[in-house]
Amino acid sequence: MPSITEIRNAVVPISSDISNAYIDFSAMTASVVAVISDVYRNGKPLVGYGFNSNGRYAPHGLLAERFIPRLKQADMGGVIEPELAWEAMMVNEKPGGHGERSVAVGVLDMALWDLAAKIADVPLYQLIADRWRNGTVDNSIFVYAAGGYYYPGKGEGELQKELQSYRDRGYRVCKIKIGADLEQDLARIEAALEVLGDGRNLAVDANGRFNLETAIAYAEALKPYNLFWYEEAGDPLDFALQSELAKVYPHSMATGENLFSHQDARNLLRYGNMRADRDWLQVDCALSYGLVEYKRFVDLLPEYGFSVKNCIPHGGHQMSLNIAAGLGLGGNESYPDVFAPFGGFADGCAVEDSMVGLHSCPGVGFEEKSNLISVMRSATETQ
Amino acid sequence: MPSITEIRNAVVPISSDISNAYIDFSAMTASVVAVISDVYRNGKPLVGYGFNSNGRYAPHGLLAERFIPRLKQADMGGVIEPELAWEAMMVNEKPGGHGERSVAVGVLDMALWDLAAKIADVPLYQLIADRWRNGTVDNSIFVYAAGGYYYPGKGEGELQKELQSYRDRGYRVCKIKIGADLEQDLARIEAALEVLGDGRNLAVDANGRFNLETAIAYAEALKPYNLFWYEEAGDPLDFALQSELAKVYPHSMATGENLFSHQDARNLLRYGNMRADRDWLQVDCALSYGLVEYKRFVDLLPEYGFSVKNCIPHGGHQMSLNIAAGLGLGGNESYPDVFAPFGGFADGCAVEDSMVGLHSCPGVGFEEKSNLISVMRSATETQ
Repeated sequence: MPSITEIRNAVVPISSDISNAYIDFSAMTASVVAVISDVYRNGKPLVGYGFNSNGRYAPHGLLAERFIPRLKQADMGGVIEPELAWEAMMVNEKPGGHGERSVAVGVLDMALWDLAAKIADVPLYQLIADRWRNGTVDNSIFVYAAGGYYYPGKGEGELQKELQSYRDRGYRVCKIKIGADLEQDLARIEAALEVLGDGRNLAVDANGRFNLETAIAYAEALKPYNLFWYEEAGDPLDFALQSELAKVYPHSMATGENLFSHQDARNLLRYGNMRADRDWLQVDCALSYGLVEYKRFVDLLPEYGFSVKNCIPHGGHQMSLNIAAGLGLGGNESYPDVFAPFGGFADGCAVEDSMVGLHSCPGVGFEEKSNLISVMRSATETQ
Repeated sequence: MPSITEIRNAVVPISSDISNAYIDFSAMTASVVAVISDVYRNGKPLVGYGFNSNGRYAPHGLLAERFIPRLKQADMGGVIEPELAWEAMMVNEKPGGHGERSVAVGVLDMALWDLAAKIADVPLYQLIADRWRNGTVDNSIFVYAAGGYYYPGKGEGELQKELQSYRDRGYRVCKIKIGADLEQDLARIEAALEVLGDGRNLAVDANGRFNLETAIAYAEALKPYNLFWYEEAGDPLDFALQSELAKVYPHSMATGENLFSHQDARNLLRYGNMRADRDWLQVDCALSYGLVEYKRFVDLLPEYGFSVKNCIPHGGHQMSLNIAAGLGLGGNESYPDVFAPFGGFADGCAVEDSMVGLHSCPGVGFEEKSNLISVMRSATETQ
C-alpha cells in the first residue's frame, strides 16, 4: 500500500543574461519538489522529483499554500495514482483562469509520475505506453536545439558559433529568437543559414511579440526561406491573429507553449486556423497541470483533425521526452546550453541527426542526468 | 513628490459553509495589502488598501515573491500612477496564462487607485470620471443581491427567508445558485419567485458547471420564466458552448467572471455569440490585473458592438462600484450576507429599488465601511 510520507518544496535560481523578444531571464527561478514515499528499494525510500519548466517563475507560495497540503491529504486508496492526485489537488478550484496554479500542479504531477514509474520499476515512457498505447514506445525522438537568444553584445558571429556548436552536438534543426527588429533578424537568419544550410533546419520564435501588421511583415520576409517553423508570432490568446496569419504564410507555424489548460488549447484548435498538415502544437505539460491534463489535450486532437504527431512540446525537459516516447509525439524541444541543469536529457544519450534515445532507469530518468539529479537532491535534501 | 515607503501583505480567512455548484468556500482566503505613502494628511501617512475578490484564494506568495518587490522598485517619477505601476509589476512576465498573478496584480492595483485618489483628495469614482469620462459620475448604481447558495440542510423555506431579507434591504433583483439538480433547482426557482414576483427579478448562476447538453436542458426549463439572467452555464473558456446556447435561449445571459485578461475577454466577445441587446459581461477587475487592465477590456467593447452598459462586474466590492459610477457601467454585484466584510458598500448608503448611492470620502470608500476598514487596518497593522 504505497503512500506519500513527505513532500519537500524548494526554489533554485535559473537566472541567465539571455533574453527573448518579450522578457529577460535575469531573475528566473524554478521550483523543485520531492515527493517521498514509504516504498523502500535498496534500503532507501523511493522519491519522485518534479520541477517547473522555464519561462514561468517558481510557484513556491502556491505549492506551499494550497497544492502540497491538498496532495498530502489526498486519499488515493493505497496507490500512487497521478489522476486521483490531480482531482485532490484541484478540489475547490474554480474553472478558468489557468496560470500559475497550472505550473504548481505541473510540478507535482511530474513528481507523481516519476514516483509512480519508480514504484512500477519502469521508465516513465514505458508506463505511459503501457497505459495508453498498448506498450509501444518510440525509442528515438526528434529534438531540435533551442537557443539563439539575444544577449548584450552578441553579434552574428557569436550566433553562428552557437549554432555550429549545436551542429557539433548532433542537432540538425536549431531555433533562434526573432522580434527585436526585422532587418537585424533577417541578418541573423542569413547568418544562421550559413551554418545550418537548408531553411528547413531553422526555426524562428517571436515569443508572442507581434501585432498582426508586424506578424504579416515578418511572414512576408520569412516566406522565401521555407523555415522549419515560424513560432508564436502574436499574443498566445489572439487566435484571430494566428488565423489571419495562416492565410498569408504558407509554411509551417508553431504555437501553444503559453496555453495552460486543455480548454485554452482547444480554443487554439477551434479558432486558430492551425493546419494539421504542417503546423505544430507546443503545449508544455510542466506549465499546464501536468501529464494528466496534457492527456486531455491529446485526446481532443482527432476531433479537430490533428494527431499526436503535431505535438512538439515546449520546455526541453525529460518529462516531455517521456511523453513523446510513450504517446508517439512529433518530437521535443531541447536546450543544449540554457536553463541548465533542467534542460537536456540522460547523460549517455547523444543526439544524432536531431534524434535522441531514451534513458533506461525507472522514472522520468533524472537519475541518469547527473547534473540535474544532484541539484534536485541537494535542493530538497534527499538522497 | 509622492512615493511608496512600504507595502504590507496579509491574509485573512473568508471561509464559509456555503457552496456553489463547483466549489465550497470552507477554506477560502483573501489577501489584504496596504501601500503606505510618504504623503501626510492630518499627521498620518496616506495608505492605499486592496484585497482580492472572492472565488480565488489569497495570492500571498505571488505578492511576496514577485509583485510587491517589483512595485517597491518601480520608478514612477514622483507620482503614484497605477498605469506606470502596472508596467513595472508585469515586467518579465510572459504573455498568456492569465490566472493567480492576475489576482495578485489586481490586489495591488486596487490599493494604488485607492492611494492615488486619496492623494488627489477625491473619491475614486471622481478620479476615474475625470480621467476617462469628462468628469461625469453616475450617482446611483444598479446592484443585485447575490446569494442563494447551497448549504447543508438549507431548504426552500430558508431560501425564501434569505430572499425576503434582501427584499427588506432594498434589493429588487436577487441571484441564486443552480447546477445541483434540475428538478431541485426548478423548485428553488419557483420558491424564489414566490418572494420576488416577476422572473425579471431573479438571476440564476450555474458557475460553469454544465456541459452543452445540460446547459440546453436547463435553458429549455428556464425559458418560460424570462429570468434577469442565466449565468455561466458552461466552462468559462468554452465559448462554443456559450455560442450554441445563445441559439436556443432567447433571454438574457451573463458570463465573464472567470476571464482574467482583456485577451481572454476579447475571445468571449469574438466567439461567444454574446448579444449586446440583452447579455451581460461580468469581468471582475479585482481578479484580472485591476482597473488598468479592465480599462483595456472596456476600450475593446465598441469594436464588438458592446458598451459599458453591458458590464455588471462580479465581486460585489467597492472597487467595481467606483468603476461603475466613474465609467457608467450597467451596475455591480452585491453580497449582502456573504464574503463579509469584503462585500458591500459604504455604511450610510442604503439600497433602494436595487439602486445604491456612493461614498463621499477620498479613495475607494473603505473608510466609510467600518467593518472592512477595521479588518484591513488590523490585518496590515496600519491606522
